[in-house]
Amino acid sequence: MADPTDKMESIINLCKRRGFVFPSSDIYGGFNGFFDYGPLGVELKNNIKQAWWQDFVHRRDDIVGLDSSIIHHPTTWKASGHIDNFTDPLVDCKESKMRYRADQLFFAPVRVAGETIGYVSVLEDDGMQAKAEEMANDMKRKLAKQGALEPIVLKDYTESLPEEHALIPSPATGKPGSLTPPRSFNMMFQTYVGAMQDASATAYLRPETAQGIFINFKNVVDTGRVKLPFGIAQIGKAFRNEINPRNFIFRSREFEQMEIEYFISPSSDWATAHKDWIEGCLAWFESIGIPRAKLSLYPHPTEKLAHYSKGTTDIMFEFPFGVQELQGVAARGDFDLTQHSNVSGQKLDWFDEAAKARYIPHVIEPSVGVDRVFLALLTTAYHEDEVEGEKRVVLRLPARVAPFKAAIFPLVKNKPELVERAEALYRRLKKRHNVFYDAAGAIGRRYRRQDEIGTPFGITIDFETIEKNAGVTVRDRDTLEQVRMTEDEVVRYLDDKVNG
Amino acid sequence: MADPTDKMESIINLCKRRGFVFPSSDIYGGFNGFFDYGPLGVELKNNIKQAWWQDFVHRRDDIVGLDSSIIHHPTTWKASGHIDNFTDPLVDCKESKMRYRADQLFFAPVRVAGETIGYVSVLEDDGMQAKAEEMANDMKRKLAKQGALEPIVLKDYTESLPEEHALIPSPATGKPGSLTPPRSFNMMFQTYVGAMQDASATAYLRPETAQGIFINFKNVVDTGRVKLPFGIAQIGKAFRNEINPRNFIFRSREFEQMEIEYFISPSSDWATAHKDWIEGCLAWFESIGIPRAKLSLYPHPTEKLAHYSKGTTDIMFEFPFGVQELQGVAARGDFDLTQHSNVSGQKLDWFDEAAKARYIPHVIEPSVGVDRVFLALLTTAYHEDEVEGEKRVVLRLPARVAPFKAAIFPLVKNKPELVERAEALYRRLKKRHNVFYDAAGAIGRRYRRQDEIGTPFGITIDFETIEKNAGVTVRDRDTLEQVRMTEDEVVRYLDDKVNG
Repeated sequence: MADPTDKMESIINLCKRRGFVFPSSDIYGGFNGFFDYGPLGVELKNNIKQAWWQDFVHRRDDIVGLDSSIIHHPTTWKASGHIDNFTDPLVDCKESKMRYRADQLFFAPVRVAGETIGYVSVLEDDGMQAKAEEMANDMKRKLAKQGALEPIVLKDYTESLPEEHALIPSPATGKPGSLTPPRSFNMMFQTYVGAMQDASATAYLRPETAQGIFINFKNVVDTGRVKLPFGIAQIGKAFRNEINPRNFIFRSREFEQMEIEYFISPSSDWATAHKDWIEGCLAWFESIGIPRAKLSLYPHPTEKLAHYSKGTTDIMFEFPFGVQELQGVAARGDFDLTQHSNVSGQKLDWFDEAAKARYIPHVIEPSVGVDRVFLALLTTAYHEDEVEGEKRVVLRLPARVAPFKAAIFPLVKNKPELVERAEALYRRLKKRHNVFYDAAGAIGRRYRRQDEIGTPFGITIDFETIEKNAGVTVRDRDTLEQVRMTEDEVVRYLDDKVNG
Repeated sequence: MADPTDKMESIINLCKRRGFVFPSSDIYGGFNGFFDYGPLGVELKNNIKQAWWQDFVHRRDDIVGLDSSIIHHPTTWKASGHIDNFTDPLVDCKESKMRYRADQLFFAPVRVAGETIGYVSVLEDDGMQAKAEEMANDMKRKLAKQGALEPIVLKDYTESLPEEHALIPSPATGKPGSLTPPRSFNMMFQTYVGAMQDASATAYLRPETAQGIFINFKNVVDTGRVKLPFGIAQIGKAFRNEINPRNFIFRSREFEQMEIEYFISPSSDWATAHKDWIEGCLAWFESIGIPRAKLSLYPHPTEKLAHYSKGTTDIMFEFPFGVQELQGVAARGDFDLTQHSNVSGQKLDWFDEAAKARYIPHVIEPSVGVDRVFLALLTTAYHEDEVEGEKRVVLRLPARVAPFKAAIFPLVKNKPELVERAEALYRRLKKRHNVFYDAAGAIGRRYRRQDEIGTPFGITIDFETIEKNAGVTVRDRDTLEQVRMTEDEVVRYLDDKVNG
C-alpha cells in the first residue's frame, strides 16, 4: 500500500463494493465525470454537509444560510465575467478525436547543432521532462543526426506559435499535423429555458454557488437582520464541463460546493480577516477528522491574481494522487457586488450607521467542495491492518461523520432472549441515530464488515448480558477495546460521541 | 382573508419580507419559474428534508438512501420513455408570440341555426364555459345572425382538426389565423456534455429523481445488504422546462423531490402495498403539521393510467389556489426495471432465496415535492389574529420544522446582568438547536417578529430571573401562555419539543 495509485484503487474499490460511490449510470457503461453516491456515501456526504452547516451557520451569530436556484438569470454570468472568462484552452487531435487541455499538453522543438529536426509532445506529468528528452534522443538517433542535442525546453500548447501547430505531434498518434490551434472553451453547461432554442433563451447551470449569494445580497440585507461583518453560506450543486475530469470524485463535472461570502467593511483589515478564515477552515477540517499534518497552504503568487483580488490562499490536502486544492480562501475586494450593481442598476451596498456612510462591502470567500472533503476523509480514514491474524480494512471515520454510528449485534441469532434484547436496544438507538443491526455470521466477521464502512462502535448483546445482567459490550473500532456498560449508558455514550 | 388570492398574496409577501423565498435573480428582474430560498426558507426546507430522511430512511429497516447525479447517461431517458413521451403539447400565437399549453387552451365552434359562424377560444379556468358562451353571444349579435345559438361544446386545442387551426382565434388577440398546430414539446432541459455541441453530446437535466434510483438498483442490491421488500430513497433537484410555470413555488422549473422506489415481489399483493404507502404518507404529513382535513385522495381513473401502471393515487392538498397534487403514489409494476434491463442488457432482478427464483420486482413509488410540502406547511401555518389589541401574523409551524426553535430575549438591553444571563442561555441552546437572540425593541414587538416567522418559543430573561432566581419565562407562540422554568429545564423542554 506504499504506492499511492494502489491506495486510490483500494479506495475506489471499497467505494463501489460497499456502496459509497458508484460511477454514474453504471449500467449504461458510466458517464465520464459524473458519480452517484450509494446508501453509505449519501450518509457520509449528508453528515459532512450538516456538520459544516451546524458549525458555520447554526453555531455562529454572523452567518445566515441561502439556497439559490442552480439556473439563474443569464445576465448573472455576464456580470460575473463567467461568460467571457470561464474558459479552458482546448486542443483537438483531428485524427484520433482526442481532446486535451492545451495547458496540460507540453511540447518542445528538438534541436541538434543549431538545426530544428522536429518536435516532441508530452502530457503534463511529473516525469514529462525526462520523457521528452528520451523522445528527443530517439528522434536524433532515427534521423541519424550528428552533433549535440540542445536542452529540451518544454512549453505548454497555449504558448505555441501558429506556424508550429502543423509541426507538433499529437500525443495520441505521435505524428505531427493533426492538432488544431488552441481555442477557448467555456466550461459552463448551457441549456435553453422556455420553448425557444435560440440565443435569447440560453441559460447556464451555475459553475459555482457563489454568484447566487451575491445576487441575493440585497434581499438578505433587507430581510435578514444582519450586521456587518456578516456572511451568507450556501451548499449546493455546481456544474463544470471539464475537458478532462479526473481523479475519481476530485474533479468531476457535477459536484457540490459549500461556500461562504463573508462581507466586511472596506476600511477593515482584509488581511487579518483573510488569515482568520484560513485558520478557521483549518480548524474545522481538523475537527471533522482531517489531520493538520496532511494540510498545507498555497498562497497564490501576487502576479497571478486577478486584478480585483487582494489575495487567495488554497488549503491543500495530501491526496494519494498528489497535493491538491481542498479549499480556496479568496479575498475578492468589492469586485462581485460592484459588477452586479453596475449591470443590474441596483444599489448593492451597506449603510454603516456608525460612520453614517454607504459603501459596497469587501468580501472574503472560503469555498470548499463537498466531494473533495468526502475524498479527503476517506483517504485519511482508510487503513489496512491485521486483527487476530486476519487482514482488516478499516475506515477510521470520526463518529460525527460516519454513516452508521454503531452496529448492534446479538452474539448468536438462534437465542430469542439475545435477539429480543438486541432488537430492543437497536430500536431505542435508531430513534436517535443512524445505527445498523446485524445478526448474521460469526461475530468477528460482523465486526470487520462494520470496520470497513467506518462504524465506530460495535455493541454486542451476549450471554453475560442476559444471564448475569452484566450489560452489553461496546467495542471501539480503532482501539479494539471492549467495555461493558448498561443499555442506558450506551445511549448516553453514543450521544456524547456523535454530538461531541 | 377569506379570499384565497389574498391569502396567497399574503404568503408570498411574507416569504419575501422575512427571507423565506425570493424570486430567483431578483436584481435582474427575476427569472420565470425559478426561486431562491432565503435565510429562513433554507432552514424550513432543510428541516422538511431531514424529517423525511429521518422518518423514511434512518428510522426504518427496509429503506436505504441514494444521491445520484442530476445529469445521467442520456440513454437513461431513452429507456425510461422520457425522450419520446415526456412532452407537453405546445401552441404558439405567431402574432403575439404568446405560448400556450394546447391542453389548457379551449375552443368551440359557434353555430347558429345549423351554420358555423366562427370560433371562440378561452384559457382553462373555472369560468371558461360561461365566458365562451358570452363570446358566442357577442359574435352572434355582431354578425346579426338570427336563429338559435347551439350549445357551446369546448374542446381543448389538442383535439382540433387541421382545418380548424386557421379559424380558431388566438386568446391573445381574439383574432383567428395566428395559432400554430399543436406540437410536442419535450420538457427536459437539454445540455451538451463534453466539448462538442451536437446530437452525440446531448444530455438532459433529470426531470425526476426516480430514474436515478432504477439505474442504481443493481448496485444497491449488490452492495446494500437489502432484502425484498425494500426501498431506495432519494432527495434532490429536478428540472422541467414548464411552458407555464405558476402558483409561486408550486409549479416551477427547478424544484426538489423526495422519492422512494419501494420494491416488492411480483407475487405479493400490490394493492395492499399501495394502500399502505398512501396511509403512511398521510400519516407523515400529519406528523409534520399538515392536517388530515386539508388532504384528500384522487385515484387516477383506470382508463387514464399508462399501460404498465396498476394504479396511481394522488394525495391532494387544499392550496389557496385550489385542491392540487401534493404527492403521487404510483404502482408502476415492473415497467422501469424491465425497460432499463432491456436497454442496458444488464440483469436487474432479484434472487428470491425462499422461492429459489429470479424475478424483476414490482415497485410502489411515493413521490413528493419538497417545495410543495414547504408551501402546504406555510399555507397551513399562516394565520392572522389579534394579540393585545394588535394585529398579528403568526406561522403556526411545528417545532420540528420551524426555522428557529426558540428566541432568547433579555427583557431590557441596558441591564448587563440580564443580558449576560440571556447570552449564556443563548450560547447553551445554540449548541443544540438553531435559536435566535434578540435584545432590541419592546418585548411585545420582539415576540411578534418571531411569531411571524414561526418560532415556537420565546424565552425571556427578566428581573425575576435574576432577582428572585425565579427562572426564565417560556412563551408559547400558539397558546400565548407563559410558564416559568429554570435554564436546565428549558434545555430539556426544547429538546423534547423539537425531537418529539
